Amino acid sequence: MGRVYATYLASRVRNARLVAVADRSPDVAESFSKEFNIPRWYRGHEELLADSEVQAVAVLSSTASHKEVVIDAARAGKAIFCEKPIAMSVEDAEEMLAEVRKLGVPFQPGFQRRFDPGYIAAKAQIEQGTIGTPVVLTSTSRDPYRPPLDFCNPAVSGGLIADMGIHDFDLARMYMGEVKSVFATGGALAYPEMETIGDIDNAIVNLTFVGGGLGAVHLSRNAVFGYDIRTEIWGTKGSLQIGYFRQTPLLVMTKAGISHDAVPYFMERFEGAYLAQIESFIDAVVNGGEPAVSGSDAVEAIRLSLAATLSCREQRVVELDECK
Amino acid sequence: MGRVYATYLASRVRNARLVAVADRSPDVAESFSKEFNIPRWYRGHEELLADSEVQAVAVLSSTASHKEVVIDAARAGKAIFCEKPIAMSVEDAEEMLAEVRKLGVPFQPGFQRRFDPGYIAAKAQIEQGTIGTPVVLTSTSRDPYRPPLDFCNPAVSGGLIADMGIHDFDLARMYMGEVKSVFATGGALAYPEMETIGDIDNAIVNLTFVGGGLGAVHLSRNAVFGYDIRTEIWGTKGSLQIGYFRQTPLLVMTKAGISHDAVPYFMERFEGAYLAQIESFIDAVVNGGEPAVSGSDAVEAIRLSLAATLSCREQRVVELDECK
Amino acid sequence: MGRVYATYLASRVRNARLVAVADRSPDVAESFSKEFNIPRWYRGHEELLADSEVQAVAVLSSTASHKEVVIDAARAGKAIFCEKPIAMSVEDAEEMLAEVRKLGVPFQPGFQRRFDPGYIAAKAQIEQGTIGTPVVLTSTSRDPYRPPLDFCNPAVSGGLIADMGIHDFDLARMYMGEVKSVFATGGALAYPEMETIGDIDNAIVNLTFVGGGLGAVHLSRNAVFGYDIRTEIWGTKGSLQIGYFRQTPLLVMTKAGISHDAVPYFMERFEGAYLAQIESFIDAVVNGGEPAVSGSDAVEAIRLSLAATLSCREQRVVELDECK
Amino acid sequence: MGRVYATYLASRVRNARLVAVADRSPDVAESFSKEFNIPRWYRGHEELLADSEVQAVAVLSSTASHKEVVIDAARAGKAIFCEKPIAMSVEDAEEMLAEVRKLGVPFQPGFQRRFDPGYIAAKAQIEQGTIGTPVVLTSTSRDPYRPPLDFCNPAVSGGLIADMGIHDFDLARMYMGEVKSVFATGGALAYPEMETIGDIDNAIVNLTFVGGGLGAVHLSRNAVFGYDIRTEIWGTKGSLQIGYFRQTPLLVMTKAGISHDAVPYFMERFEGAYLAQIESFIDAVVNGGEPAVSGSDAVEAIRLSLAATLSCREQRVVELDECK
Repeated sequence: MGRVYATYLASRVRNARLVAVADRSPDVAESFSKEFNIPRWYRGHEELLADSEVQAVAVLSSTASHKEVVIDAARAGKAIFCEKPIAMSVEDAEEMLAEVRKLGVPFQPGFQRRFDPGYIAAKAQIEQGTIGTPVVLTSTSRDPYRPPLDFCNPAVSGGLIADMGIHDFDLARMYMGEVKSVFATGGALAYPEMETIGDIDNAIVNLTFVGGGLGAVHLSRNAVFGYDIRTEIWGTKGSLQIGYFRQTPLLVMTKAGISHDAVPYFMERFEGAYLAQIESFIDAVVNGGEPAVSGSDAVEAIRLSLAATLSCREQRVVELDECK
Repeated sequence: MGRVYATYLASRVRNARLVAVADRSPDVAESFSKEFNIPRWYRGHEELLADSEVQAVAVLSSTASHKEVVIDAARAGKAIFCEKPIAMSVEDAEEMLAEVRKLGVPFQPGFQRRFDPGYIAAKAQIEQGTIGTPVVLTSTSRDPYRPPLDFCNPAVSGGLIADMGIHDFDLARMYMGEVKSVFATGGALAYPEMETIGDIDNAIVNLTFVGGGLGAVHLSRNAVFGYDIRTEIWGTKGSLQIGYFRQTPLLVMTKAGISHDAVPYFMERFEGAYLAQIESFIDAVVNGGEPAVSGSDAVEAIRLSLAATLSCREQRVVELDECK
Repeated sequence: MGRVYATYLASRVRNARLVAVADRSPDVAESFSKEFNIPRWYRGHEELLADSEVQAVAVLSSTASHKEVVIDAARAGKAIFCEKPIAMSVEDAEEMLAEVRKLGVPFQPGFQRRFDPGYIAAKAQIEQGTIGTPVVLTSTSRDPYRPPLDFCNPAVSGGLIADMGIHDFDLARMYMGEVKSVFATGGALAYPEMETIGDIDNAIVNLTFVGGGLGAVHLSRNAVFGYDIRTEIWGTKGSLQIGYFRQTPLLVMTKAGISHDAVPYFMERFEGAYLAQIESFIDAVVNGGEPAVSGSDAVEAIRLSLAATLSCREQRVVELDECK
Repeated sequence: MGRVYATYLASRVRNARLVAVADRSPDVAESFSKEFNIPRWYRGHEELLADSEVQAVAVLSSTASHKEVVIDAARAGKAIFCEKPIAMSVEDAEEMLAEVRKLGVPFQPGFQRRFDPGYIAAKAQIEQGTIGTPVVLTSTSRDPYRPPLDFCNPAVSGGLIADMGIHDFDLARMYMGEVKSVFATGGALAYPEMETIGDIDNAIVNLTFVGGGLGAVHLSRNAVFGYDIRTEIWGTKGSLQIGYFRQTPLLVMTKAGISHDAVPYFMERFEGAYLAQIESFIDAVVNGGEPAVSGSDAVEAIRLSLAATLSCREQRVVELDECK
């Protein structure tokens, strides 16, 4: 992701100038600075935060390091964009946000789907009243294959439900409001080796919203044909379906049938959304507005991830209140 | 449904001859016999079962009456087709089947989706190994509007989960094998008046299969645009999506966008499947084979309906074993 | 086609009773009468026309025989349905219609696409003004393979443009009005052996309508994946696209891509339309209305076929007036 | 288009550095240089060509000026990218290319569709033999509305067939080889005011290829819902369909039906292709390869445009040889 944001910030985001990059590994930092024509590079975030020309930072390091970096950045008075999830626990996330709020720096967590034209258009339709009151949401995220086992490791990734579901949980809140309780089932069904690291590869999470509505989040690592990202919102007067399956606009028609390709993976699906997201952040920093996604959006998505993970493990309904 | 089967049996099913119709209301029976050119009509099933020319019966009366009619028909040695659900309780269903088995008459419960080309082709793909081992199923049934309240009344219909879900439960078993436990959430979200009769209009039912796989059944009465019937099956090597949204092959393209119509309701969606189903039954009767759907398929779908209904009410995981 | 109409008339068309069948071959006539439970069979149309119980006839014999049969039927006072094309020449067709008109019998030529829900809905949209004034039409008919050479023989079939294009020409007139001139190109491109019988397997026919609009008809014998039937109508305020490519509602998604089947051939595509067409004819006969398709619709489609065939041969614009 | 290429060259094309911009209007040149951070600006192409740091130029001025600018650029030894059409006549185009060839500078005409993933994937499928021998091509270009009349003026734009069709003619050649003859019909059907400038708003062009294949190009200014760009290629073993209709991945489903938006216009459809095209040119300049599109591709597309325009006016088949 560092590469993606570097490309965007180095040249495609109006009003942004990429002045420095930092990485614990000096080699990485230096090669990035060369590749993207970045004037300065640093050995760690502390040095970078001391650079007075730096107004805003994008925190793209490992989740485990987010807390320290974000708090330091807030104390240095920088505007902060932080990739999802901002933390592994609600407690850490709230601590980070407390500091951010106290110091009054702009803070935006990374939820790029909110910047995808399909999700934006769906929100506009709801606000226009096209579907009446939304009452049911289903949201699907399926990867084309499992990541390497050490990446999947729940100690690092939080496990399937947290790692993949966090986007769907964020969308669920955006379209339907707060969640009251969850129930989840899951299993290592396609890759039995997932069990060796204590993770699963498929899960279904039921949501009950505070307002009474229902939701289901479908997560999987075995959409072997490609990347399956869909959200459906069902209202009292209509419904919305967000998502698509075909990448290249070509149908091949032979005696074997009619076929097309699929969306390969998240970068092909959300390239434009990642750009729009960082543009939105820069815009808020430059023009002084409120970031489009708030810190508490990040906290609540983590809370949901943890509640669903707990429910899956204990096979019982978990109230969101339990996860503090 | 009486009208549909009468049309088919009167003229479209090879090897079938419709010789008699019975209804508690003589007016109904007589008018049916005239409309469909049926030689004889009777005041009740007892008279019809005494007609020695009758080899097979289609039981299309109210669910509450199925038990008596089916048992009487079995005793009269008739082959029996019985609309879904064959009973409101597992106990009743098993009693009916015990009699049917004892007397050795052919018995086929009504699950027309199994005879739809999409579901048949999906089964063939699975059997050919196209998707590897099926591990997750999602199945969706959404009505375009709620039926009249007295029809929805759980005392009559069994409630949303039983009334609508039974088809999805049957498909779930067909594609994924037996279910071990269920968890369901639901609510009267689009039609608050459903609460006055103790029913809901939306539900999500999570399934855990004996073989380890997962499932979710989505049920709703407010797909206001039309009739939404879809099943997805996810395997280790691929996946299948069954269903469609457009009825008439016409796209209308104006400044307002690009639009098409939707599938209106179940008769438009499953007309061919209802015909194929009764043809399959007649074929089994005439040629002596095993009916394509068994009595225990009917029992297990009822058991699932009851377990899911119970789970939804008590908000806990229900093991299928609990429902006897 | 005899088999199709026999099935429909024997059992599925309200108000129709199939009382007799005739064929020059007594074996065929007799076996049809047995298969479809038809009370009487005859050795030729003369005998059948003498049957006083016969009110209406469906002329499904070879095109070459239509003229004699239709004229005899008209003289016998029978209502007449006649498969397309009603004749091989405009002259013959007009002679037949002159007799039909003189004797005042109902006459309906076979153009089943007019009875397909897509084409009907398109017409309704145009009449409602949805697309403003229609100005351009494209209509496509592609077969999945070439028929046997003796069937294709232009002496029998009229050649590709007449045999396949007649439906598109009829639709063109229905949606856009009369045609002023045509230009056509064609060739034996996929099956060189078509040249041995003087026929082609692909053609494109440009139409200029009397009202100024434009059209193109695309014809082919090598849509090897299936049956490709589409019509597009472009107006000043919008456009319409009629047609579809998928037969079975199943998507198969594997590493090889996402695929579905195709519409196999005309019977799968137009089964319902053939039924609706003959129902419409029977309805006109029984209730005395004007048939939904007129004799002059048949004549003008033939005229267009001949003009386009001539244009293709001589590679010049042909005015419709030339073809009398 | 200047703005588009400036954006790309200023920041998104690897190995490109935008060092200067020229425009006859100094205000435009200066404001461009400011907006895109371009080091130098000039009052005309002569000044710019004298800039020794300039290695390659993108000629985006009016078609009428292309000849002079390209020849001057060639003489100055610059690599040249020139927007389509490179000239209004075959004679001018050939004169330009003669100079380019004599001086040995790289030259690439603008045909961005060749760089769209759909068209690229189609070409790959053909080369892999998926569809056997291509025998028929249909290619459609429809604008959502007519441009201003002074833009449409044939003296400036070459008229509808040249202005819009040139892309389809280029694709036709790419997929099917050289064209032998054309026949075209057209009219001012949706915007009668087009007649006042001697132009049309709809045309259908039939192509006969040297190899025997057939083609049809459909052109229109009244796809009022959006931008309709499609190409179909029919072979002996299969066929390909390139194109799509929906821009935003959102389906809206209400009682009014199921609807989605459309592709608004060419920039939304071909944004990525314009970028890939100029990247390809820069790559050829930097690495010394042959440009992906040749000068004679530009000449032949112009020849086809002129032949089709002539055919439309004179309503006769025009051999390509006539247009020199």
